[in-house]
Amino acid sequence: MYKVKVFVTLKESVLDPQGSAVKSSLHRMAYHEVSDVRIGKYLELTIDGPAESLDHRIQEMCHKLLSNPVIEDYRYEVEEVVAL
Amino acid sequence: MYKVKVFVTLKESVLDPQGSAVKSSLHRMAYHEVSDVRIGKYLELTIDGPAESLDHRIQEMCHKLLSNPVIEDYRYEVEEVVAL
Repeated sequence: MYKVKVFVTLKESVLDPQGSAVKSSLHRMAYHEVSDVRIGKYLELTIDGPAESLDHRIQEMCHKLLSNPVIEDYRYEVEEVVAL
Repeated sequence: MYKVKVFVTLKESVLDPQGSAVKSSLHRMAYHEVSDVRIGKYLELTIDGPAESLDHRIQEMCHKLLSNPVIEDYRYEVEEVVAL
């Protein structure tokens, strides 16, 4: 069994209005040291499948459903979980 | 300057309807090996501030604005960025 952590972020060139809103809020709350905020998605998938095709299948899922490749980048980390 | 990566996740005991919807979609797309999906937020903050108060200030921001401590957990990683 694998636990896969997927991070989906907006590409650098894409505006992030949600991040700007959070930054403004932080400034209003006197956290003026925050100079930038970017917001993305974080997904944890639990996968029961063979190790061989794992990377390929994860990349497919990210491309087809979990991210929008036009405006978003993704990266992921795979962790093997030993069943107790 | 610091880059702070914040991960906000729903507590284990809280239902994640968005995660369930993504899981169902993955199953419909024949990714039956995915047994669970949990969805959270991923934030990247850029902070120009003194190192001493950094941890304390980040925890405050997470508590007050970036997460809802009633239903969410958070964790973060700090990375020092050397200006070029």
